[in-house]
Order: sequence, then structure tokens, then C-alpha cells
Amino acid sequence: MWKQRSTHNTEENKQVDQRPHVVIIGAGFGGLWAAKALKDAAVKITIIDQHNHHLFQPLLYQVATAALSPTDIATPIRHILRHQKNTTVILAEVTNIDPIQQLVFTNRQVYAYDYLIVATGAQLRYGGHDEWEEHAPGLKSITDAATIRRKVLLAFEKAEMETDPEKIRAWLTFVLVGAGPTGIEMAGAIAELAQRTLTHDFRHTDPRSARILLVEAMPRILLSFPPPQAKKAHQALQKLGIEVRINAPIDHLDANSVTIDGERIPTHTVIWTAGVTASPAGAWLQTETDRFGRVLVENTLTIPEHSNVFVIGDTARVMQDGKPLPGLAPVAMQEGEYVANAIMLRLGGLDTGDPFHYIHHGNMVTVGRAYGLVNFGGLQINGLPGWWLWLVTHIYTLIGFRNRTLVLFQWAWSYFTYQRGSRLITDEEPALSEPDVRGHATQRRNKYR
Amino acid sequence: MWKQRSTHNTEENKQVDQRPHVVIIGAGFGGLWAAKALKDAAVKITIIDQHNHHLFQPLLYQVATAALSPTDIATPIRHILRHQKNTTVILAEVTNIDPIQQLVFTNRQVYAYDYLIVATGAQLRYGGHDEWEEHAPGLKSITDAATIRRKVLLAFEKAEMETDPEKIRAWLTFVLVGAGPTGIEMAGAIAELAQRTLTHDFRHTDPRSARILLVEAMPRILLSFPPPQAKKAHQALQKLGIEVRINAPIDHLDANSVTIDGERIPTHTVIWTAGVTASPAGAWLQTETDRFGRVLVENTLTIPEHSNVFVIGDTARVMQDGKPLPGLAPVAMQEGEYVANAIMLRLGGLDTGDPFHYIHHGNMVTVGRAYGLVNFGGLQINGLPGWWLWLVTHIYTLIGFRNRTLVLFQWAWSYFTYQRGSRLITDEEPALSEPDVRGHATQRRNKYR
Repeated sequence: MWKQRSTHNTEENKQVDQRPHVVIIGAGFGGLWAAKALKDAAVKITIIDQHNHHLFQPLLYQVATAALSPTDIATPIRHILRHQKNTTVILAEVTNIDPIQQLVFTNRQVYAYDYLIVATGAQLRYGGHDEWEEHAPGLKSITDAATIRRKVLLAFEKAEMETDPEKIRAWLTFVLVGAGPTGIEMAGAIAELAQRTLTHDFRHTDPRSARILLVEAMPRILLSFPPPQAKKAHQALQKLGIEVRINAPIDHLDANSVTIDGERIPTHTVIWTAGVTASPAGAWLQTETDRFGRVLVENTLTIPEHSNVFVIGDTARVMQDGKPLPGLAPVAMQEGEYVANAIMLRLGGLDTGDPFHYIHHGNMVTVGRAYGLVNFGGLQINGLPGWWLWLVTHIYTLIGFRNRTLVLFQWAWSYFTYQRGSRLITDEEPALSEPDVRGHATQRRNKYR
Repeated sequence: MWKQRSTHNTEENKQVDQRPHVVIIGAGFGGLWAAKALKDAAVKITIIDQHNHHLFQPLLYQVATAALSPTDIATPIRHILRHQKNTTVILAEVTNIDPIQQLVFTNRQVYAYDYLIVATGAQLRYGGHDEWEEHAPGLKSITDAATIRRKVLLAFEKAEMETDPEKIRAWLTFVLVGAGPTGIEMAGAIAELAQRTLTHDFRHTDPRSARILLVEAMPRILLSFPPPQAKKAHQALQKLGIEVRINAPIDHLDANSVTIDGERIPTHTVIWTAGVTASPAGAWLQTETDRFGRVLVENTLTIPEHSNVFVIGDTARVMQDGKPLPGLAPVAMQEGEYVANAIMLRLGGLDTGDPFHYIHHGNMVTVGRAYGLVNFGGLQINGLPGWWLWLVTHIYTLIGFRNRTLVLFQWAWSYFTYQRGSRLITDEEPALSEPDVRGHATQRRNKYR
């Protein structure tokens, strides 16, 4: 019944593989694009990720707000690379790197490399308040998105079961920390959920009365856009009924409230989009990092100590025109392709080539339904045209015919019906963990009789 | 910012609601169909479920085998009933019933009823071996389906990381306990996954070498079908490379093996579809049950002690033609509608009407790709026509345009590409919990150099 694939036996065990070994850590936009660009190279590639799927992060907020299903924006890494025969995909967690011995340690095996590409991304940063993470989840993985979806949907359920107006108000207060693109898109999506999707679903509370706060420590929102567009976004948010607070750092937060600028606001739903820090790659490589943990790479994206170790994407601090490049998918993708090319040039005995140069095409963000802001090399497109551009770009960038079709269909369906198809609360334990009978039996009984 | 819906204030607090109160426990096929049939009745309905969604159980095995996404077959109960103004949906867990005082106790509140409909379904039964549940999950909820999906997909990942042929063989052995429709459909789906979907995805192991066992304690498979059809199903399974074992009760099972009829088979993936037992409703109601925990109801679906308490669906044992009715969705749906009608007749001062009579339309099952077996009142339709009939019936029965479209699209896509779009491993903790370095460093290093 069982047999080992014979071609593989020949290739791996019966003769020594002489091809240089490229190990890629992380299959996000940086790592995956590097692997794909090495498709035809005479190398052996091992790509290691702690998840089995590549995640299309720009749409993760739509999973968190029940518009899309996790599987719509996640594709198995194996599946993407299934026809790329020089590549092995490994599901494992990297625990350390030894750049002297050229080894990558994982919780499963140890891998020796000739070239190493570190593309391990970023994690949330709570500015010295790690204890806030428990109460204010952020949005990095499918699990995070499911947690936020659960928290948001359960808040409406809990409000429906309360009778005390103060408690209802707290359950229907949603606070987003950080007014960058993710915070803005999430605020818009929650507003649509409350004001349109859930309108007829409850009997005791009105979801339209939900209070949505977008809180930003800096003097304005959307720092990556020019001020006139940020102002437009601010107005569009206010039109959706979202309270925008600028110059408002978080003083404190816990399970029942958030304190902003001295004011304590009762809430059970705080979502963190305020900042990220790089993965611990800098410590593994024993090389210099900036205060956000990003590795200070050369202009060839290698580390100063080892020219065969590349660091890309959110893990690297790459300077261009005197500023570090932002943590965006296109940056990571271009870096991945640059590094793949550099390795191929070196294998051909050539110079590494020119230093990396990022070509910026534009920034885009949506503010609720049918309102987009696009900044395309100075050309600013706002409103419905901006939203269409955002939509086309995101569908185009998604991987695979299936995901594109499913996302497009669900957006069309949501657009015309105001519904959101993924309102699923799956892990109910905490939802049901607070027995709260409160002697309502008699009261209710009398009322119903 | 926050206000309570004013119409509701008037309706609930300012005047006493005189309408009789119907409490429905469970929003599966029985409870939901009862609620929908009471749409225009002059009653106040409270439907309580521990999940926020109604689940289309007949397709749950497709979620467990990565063909569909959980949200494709789950619809929020609130959403289904959003325009039914006489109905309140409560997300809570029932803990007890007091049929004398006419109260339902939940972990949140206590509800007083005039009429009670108990439709709490069934849970898995391990025949006195509750300790097997940990190692052999069954398929009842979305969480179960996600657990099985994770187990199945991870087994292929683990096999890929092993080098010991015995260990690889154990990871690639899948055992399904119980050869009813669920066991057969799941076996077919795993066979397709291994033989078609994953073919190009691995480098060290061949998913096609997976061993799939379907184990049945009874002398034949598919007891709900006539013997000639069961024989056809048996042959179709064997054609898919599935080993079918009849007269083979499970002697023992643990995390690393299953012992069938004295033979120990190493495996880490056992799925239980062998039997169900009713929910604890019988104990709550202090009424008589059969050995599977099903409440022995009258032919009017009430319990002998209380004529205002109805028990339906998998929770009830309803005798017809000297045999108990099977635990099928159509039985529950017809019972739900019958009970709703009985309540409306009684409210009109009329007799409860005729005793319940189930009208059986047919049984259907699929065996892998494009092979279906349908028994439609004695008329047997097998093969591709049977599969088409199965497909049309299931699409038709799904709730909502969105779900129908999404499921149909994904089936078409899977049919033509052999792919499965929901290959998502989400909760990776256990996957990464076994550090297993095993000194491969040097070995690997030498190989790669």
C-alpha cells in the first residue's frame, strides 16, 4: 500500500545534490516572491513558514469584520509552489540561526544553507505595554482575524442580553487604536456592520446606536498620505458616524475600558492597529537593529557581517532618499525579487548588481462603502473612482482564480444586500463562560404570563 | 450617541405582552423549521441556541475535508429570522428545564414558557469508551469539522517531515469508524484529497500512497439502503482504493493506533462516525428515554407528562410502522412543522389534529467524485445520475443565495481542477509542539554541501 516516490529516492539519496541551497524563512510577500523568482535557478530552495498558508494581509480586516471567509484570502504555500520542483515547503517554526555555521534551527529539523533570505515579517508593538495585548488584539494572522471577528460579533450578542443601559452602551462601544490604513478600513467596516448589516437582527438593542472611536496618538490620521487626502478621509469617517480623536495617546486599557487622554471610556472591544515591531531575526543574526527591531541592512539587502544573508520585508530597515521604506506588500515583493536576482547573478559569477531601489506606485485605502483614497505618484483619486481602483488592484493581486472569483462575488453580494456572509462565532467557550442569571426568572415570568 | 430602540420600549416595557410564549431550544433543522412555521402565529417566540449559526450538517464533511469553508454552510440564526418580528434569538446554553414551573434555565437568563419545543439534537456516542473521543473526533459542529480538517492536513505535513518509513506510513493511514453515509462520504473525500488534490504538493512523500480504512462493526455498510445499493457502494469504495472492513468492531484506540478485530494498525488520524446519542433533554424533562437517550414521545410528539412540551428531531424517538424514525434532517423538519401547526391549532381552540406521520422521500449518499446512490421510494438511481440528484438536492436545501452560489462555484471549481479551496491549518500550536531535531543537522548539512 505504501511506497516512497521513487524519483525522489534517486534524486536525494542515491546521488549527492550539488546545487547551492537557498533557505527562505517566511512565506509572506517577501519570501514567496523571492522563491517564485528563483523558479528556474539552478538552486535547491527550502521555504520555511510556521503557517501552511500564504496570507493576503491587505484584506485581513475583511475577515475580522465578517465580510470574507479566512479561506478566501489564504492559499496553501505548497499549492502555490507545487509545480516549482526545486522548492521544498516546510511547516515549522524557526527558533534560531547560526550565521557562522550557516544553519537554521527549527522546532523540527536543522537546515544548512548557502544563501539565507530572512523574511519573517513583523509583530504587534504595544509600546512597552505588553499586558494590553490580551485585551486589545491586533491583526496579523488568520487566528487574530477570527479572534477579532468573534469579539465584535459577540459584543452585539452580549448587548442584546443585557438590560442595564450602561452595560449595553459599553458592549456597543468599539475602539480602534491607530488611524493608519488598517484602523481606518476596520472602523469603516465595523460602522457598516452596525449601521447596515445587523439592522433587523436584534430585538432589544439597536446596532445602529453603536459608538465607534478611532484613536490616534499623532496630530493627524493617515500619515502615509498627503494632508489634503488625510483631511478627506477624516471627513468621510465622520460622515460614517465614527468619532476620530487625534493627539490622543492611550493612557490605560483593560478588559472593561480604555482611558484616552484622561477620559475613561467603558468598552469591551478594543482593536490594536497602532504599530509593529520586527520579528526577532536581528537577535538571531546578532546584527544591528533599529528601535523597531528592524535589521539595518546594506543597500544590497545583506547584513554587514555576512554577504550571503539577506533580510527583506518588514524585518529589514531599508533607507531610501533618507527615509526608511514603509512596511508595505509592494516593498517586500520588490525586495524578494531583487534578492532572488542577486543570488542568480552571484551564481553566474557576476557582481551583485546595482543596489536595491524601491519603485513606489501608490498608496490606497478605503473608508467604508464605495469611498476610496488613492495616491498614485502625486495623482490623488478620491471617492467612488478611488474605491474602484482599490477594488481592481486588490482582486488583481489576490492569488488564484478561485479566491478572486469568491472575493469578487462576495463583495458584489455585500454591496447590493448590505450583508456580510461570514458572521460565524466559532469558539464559543468564553461567550458562555459567565453564568449571569441575576434573578430575572420571576421578572421575565411575570412579563410573559 | 447611544439610544434604545423606542418602538421596542413601547412593546415590551410599557404594556404587558399577552401573547403565549413559545420557547424553542435548538436552531437545527427541527427547531428552525418550527420557528419559521410559526411566522404568522399570534405568539411570542424565543429560540435559544448555543451557537450563533444554523448549520447545514449534511455538508459538514466537506468542511472537514477542505472542500468548503465553514461560512459556506453556516448562516447566522438571527439573519435567517431577522424579518420574523415575533421571534427573539438568544445565544446561550440551556442548563436545565423545569416542566412543572414551565421554565428553561440557561447560563444567561431563565425563560418562562407556555409551549416548549425541545430540539437539542444528538451528540457522539463512543459505546462506553468516552476516552476515545480525544483521539477520534466526530463531526457535529463547525469546531469539530475544523479539528478534523486540521488533523487530516497536518498528517500529510507530518509525513513529509519524517524520514522513518514506519512513521510515514502511520501518518498516512486514515481510519474512519462507521460505514454509514457520513463515514462513506468522508472516506471518499479523503481519498480524493490524497489521490488528486495533493499529488504535486510534497517532495519527500507521495500522498497517493495514503491508506484509507473504513471500519464497520455490522455485517454490511450503509444499513439505511437496500443490500444491492450497499453492495454497489462497497465496490465504488474499493475502486477508490479504500479498504472496507465489515464485522470489525474497534477493540482499542489511542493517539498512535487503532486495534480492529485483534489487529493493531499504527495511525494518528481516526475519525468517528459510528453512532450518536441524544442530548440530555430526557434527564432535564425527567421523562423516559431509550438506550440512545432519545425521549419516548407520544404520537403527537409531546411527552406523556406534559402536553405543552414537544420533543423533536434527533432528541426524540418517534415510532412509525413499528420502527423508530431515523436521525435525518427531513424527519426533524417535518416534525418541526407538525409541532408548529399543533400549537396554532390549540391556540385556535381546536384539537391537536392527527398524529405525526413522516413522509419519507428518499436517501442519498455520494461515494467520491461523481458517484452517487439515491433510493427514492424504492427507485434506485446510481452513479453519475445519482450524484447529480444529490448535488441538486443539496444546493436546493442550502439556506440563502450567497451560500448556494458559493457552494456551487466551489464544487464546479473542485470538479474541474481537483483542488480544494479550504486547505487551511489555523490553530497550529499542537503542530509545532514537538521539538524533534533528532540530530539531523550534520546529516543534512553534509548532504547539502
